[in-house]
Amino acid sequence: MKLSIDEQLARIRAHTVEIIPEEELVRKLRSGRPLRVKLGVDPTGPDIHLGHAVVLRKLRLFQDLGHVAVLIIGDFTGMIGDPSGRSEGRPQLTREQVDKNVATYREQVFAILDPEKTEFHYNSEWCSKLTPEQILRLASTHTVAQMLARDDFEQRYKAEQPISIHELLYPIFQGYDSVAIRSDIELGGTEQKFNLLVGRELQRIGVLEPPQKPQCIITFPILVGTDGVRRMGKSLGNYIGVTESPDDMFGKIMSIPDSVMGDFFTLCTDLSNDEITAMLAQMRAEELNPRDAKRRLAKEIVSFYHSAEAAEGADETFLRVFSGSREQTLEDYAALADEVAIPEDLRGRPVWASTAIHQLGLAKTKSEATRLVKAGAVHVNERQLSDPQEGIGLEAGMLLRVGKRRVARLV
Amino acid sequence: MKLSIDEQLARIRAHTVEIIPEEELVRKLRSGRPLRVKLGVDPTGPDIHLGHAVVLRKLRLFQDLGHVAVLIIGDFTGMIGDPSGRSEGRPQLTREQVDKNVATYREQVFAILDPEKTEFHYNSEWCSKLTPEQILRLASTHTVAQMLARDDFEQRYKAEQPISIHELLYPIFQGYDSVAIRSDIELGGTEQKFNLLVGRELQRIGVLEPPQKPQCIITFPILVGTDGVRRMGKSLGNYIGVTESPDDMFGKIMSIPDSVMGDFFTLCTDLSNDEITAMLAQMRAEELNPRDAKRRLAKEIVSFYHSAEAAEGADETFLRVFSGSREQTLEDYAALADEVAIPEDLRGRPVWASTAIHQLGLAKTKSEATRLVKAGAVHVNERQLSDPQEGIGLEAGMLLRVGKRRVARLV
Repeated sequence: MKLSIDEQLARIRAHTVEIIPEEELVRKLRSGRPLRVKLGVDPTGPDIHLGHAVVLRKLRLFQDLGHVAVLIIGDFTGMIGDPSGRSEGRPQLTREQVDKNVATYREQVFAILDPEKTEFHYNSEWCSKLTPEQILRLASTHTVAQMLARDDFEQRYKAEQPISIHELLYPIFQGYDSVAIRSDIELGGTEQKFNLLVGRELQRIGVLEPPQKPQCIITFPILVGTDGVRRMGKSLGNYIGVTESPDDMFGKIMSIPDSVMGDFFTLCTDLSNDEITAMLAQMRAEELNPRDAKRRLAKEIVSFYHSAEAAEGADETFLRVFSGSREQTLEDYAALADEVAIPEDLRGRPVWASTAIHQLGLAKTKSEATRLVKAGAVHVNERQLSDPQEGIGLEAGMLLRVGKRRVARLV
Repeated sequence: MKLSIDEQLARIRAHTVEIIPEEELVRKLRSGRPLRVKLGVDPTGPDIHLGHAVVLRKLRLFQDLGHVAVLIIGDFTGMIGDPSGRSEGRPQLTREQVDKNVATYREQVFAILDPEKTEFHYNSEWCSKLTPEQILRLASTHTVAQMLARDDFEQRYKAEQPISIHELLYPIFQGYDSVAIRSDIELGGTEQKFNLLVGRELQRIGVLEPPQKPQCIITFPILVGTDGVRRMGKSLGNYIGVTESPDDMFGKIMSIPDSVMGDFFTLCTDLSNDEITAMLAQMRAEELNPRDAKRRLAKEIVSFYHSAEAAEGADETFLRVFSGSREQTLEDYAALADEVAIPEDLRGRPVWASTAIHQLGLAKTKSEATRLVKAGAVHVNERQLSDPQEGIGLEAGMLLRVGKRRVARLV
C-alpha cells in the first residue's frame, strides 16, 4: 500500500477510541522504518472471535503498511493462575494446555494476519528469567494508588472485594513485555488502556535496561456478543468464532439484536462510515427491512473469513430454515425474534410463566397462555416449560418462544 | 535455668505487649524441645542501642531456657533499597556495606546473646533464589486491603503519600523468612506485629512448602530516646549504644527526662516491677531525689554492658562534671535541666528569644532577658543566640540554657 501519512493516519484512526499520543504516532510513521506493533494474547481461550478480530484487523492494516505484528502470549501469568482459588475466571493452565491453545490460536490468527510479518513470543521467555531483585525494582516504579486507579481495581477495592497483591504485579509484567520486545505501538481494548500505559512508562524510565522511545498506545471499542448486551466472550457463550462454518457464522450474526447492527457493521466489516450511516438511515425510514440489512452484514463477514461463494451459500441455507427444512437452533429462533420490552411491573421479580407469556403478547388470553405452557409449546431460551405457575425472572436478552414462529427477545 | 512452665511464662511475659496466642506458646514450651526463636535484623544500622536491647535481652532469656536464637539479616530487602529515591530512610546498600554492618552487629550482639545458641542467616540465602512464579504465588496469599490495614501503610495511603508496589512485598518476604528457618516464635517491636503475623500465616497455609506449625509472636514496647519524646533511633541522634564507653553511656542516661525514667527502668534493667514501683513512689513523695534515682538507673545499665566497677567509675566522672573540671556537653546540661512546660500562648508559633527566656522563668525581667541574649549567655540546644528578637519555635524536648547552671528542658 502506498499512502500519504495523512491517509495512513485516517485508516489507523478509524473505529479506534484513543491514540496516545497521536503526534508521536505521526513521527513514528514518518520515520519510514518498520514499526513493531505489539498485541498481548491471553492463552486461556484459544478461539478467536469477532471481538478479538476488531484489533487483529487493525494489526493487519499495520502489516499492509509495512510494519511488524508482535504477538505476546501471556503464558507467564497464564500458568500462574490464581492459586488462592478466588477467581473463577482465571484457571491455572499447564504447559501442555498453553501450548495446545497457542497452536490453535496460531492456526486461526492467520485468517487475518500476514504470517510473513508476524512474530510470536511467549512472555515467559523474559519474565521467568527475572531475578527477585529485578522484580522488586520493576514493582517500585508504580504506587498502590496508581494501580488502584485502574477501573476494575478501583471498583473491586471500593466494593471491598479482595484484590491479591500479585494481581498488582500483572500490569508491571505486561508492561515489561513492551520493554523486552522494544514495542513502538501497542494495541488493546479500552479495558487494557491502563496496562498499555504502564508499558509506555517502563520504556520511558528504563528500569532494567536503558530507556527506550516509549510506545504509542491505541485502544479499541468493546464488541458486544450475540445477546447484544454483554461483551463478546467465550465464557458467556455469546461469541462468533472466526473459524466457525459459514452456516453457523451466518446464523449467529442473524441472531444479534437490531440495535447493535451498527456496531457490527462498523467494527467487523470494511464498509465505509458513509455506507453504514446510509443503511441505518434507510432502516429507520423503513425503506430497508432490518432482516435484509442483517443478511448484508452476515454476508460481508462470512465473505471476509471464508469466501463470497460461502457467504451466498450460507444465505441460502438461512433462507431455507424459514421453510422448515431442518431442525431449528436457538440462533435460528433468535433471528426470527421480535424485540419486546419487559413491562415495568414485571421487572426484578419472578413472574408466573403463564402471566409472562400473556403480558408479553405471545398469548391472547391468560387461559390460552396456561394451556400453551401445559402443552409444552413454550420455551425460555432452550428450556421447555411445563408448569404455568413456574416463577420466571425476565431479563434482557432472554428468548421466549411459543411454537415455531412466535419468538420474543426481551429488551 | 530449671523453672516450671508457669515461671518461664511469667519471665517471658514480663514487659511484653502481646503474646499471640499464649496457649500455643505454652504448648511449645511444654514440648521440651529447643525452640527456634526468630528476630529480624535491619542491616542498614550496625550499632545496637538500648532500644534494640529490649528485645535482645528477651532473646537471651529464651537461650537461658534452652532455646535457639535465629537472627535473620534482612540483606535481601536491604540491598534493594528504594530505587525510586522517594524514601530517604532506606538507602541502597552495597554487599560490602551490608557485610561490614553485619560484622559490627555480630560483635556487639554478643554483649547480650550467648554465641553458642545463636544462628545467623542472611535472608538472601532463600529470597534471592525464589523464581518469579514462586514470588507471585507468595504474593497471591495476601490482599491489598490486608496490607493497607497495616498502620503505617494506612496512614500514608490516607494522606495520599506514595506507597510503591514493591513495599507491599516486603511483609511477604519477611514472612517467608519464618517458613525458611522453621520459626517457632518471632519477637519484634509493636510496629512489627503485622509483619510477624504474615510469617505466621505463610507457615500455616504452606505456599511453596508443606504447612508448618505456625510461629507464636511476641511484641515489645518501643523505647523512647534520650529526648524522651521520639522512638530511640540512630538517625534521630537520640540513642544510647550498647558499646558506648561507660562515661558516655552514663552521661546520656543522666540526660533523659525524669518522666521516662520508669520506662527505662522497666525495659533496660533487671529490677523487679516491685522495686521500680517503690522507687517511683518515693520520687513522687519527694523522699528520693530524681537525680539519685537516675544515677541508680545509669549504674544498673552500665553494670550490665560493662561492669559494676566501670559503673562506679562513670558515676564518679559524672559527679566531677558538676564541679566544672571538664567542658560540659549537651548531655551534661540535659542532666541538670529542670522540666518547664511551654505556656499555651507560646505554642505553635515563633516567639522572640528574649520573650521565651523571660516567660520560661530563665530571666527575671524582659530587659534582663534581652541583655543575656546580647551577651551570648543564652543557648538553644547547642546553638548560641545573639539576637533577642530572633523567632524561636518552642518544642518539647528542646533545651534552653542561660549560663552554665540555669537549664530548662521544655515539655
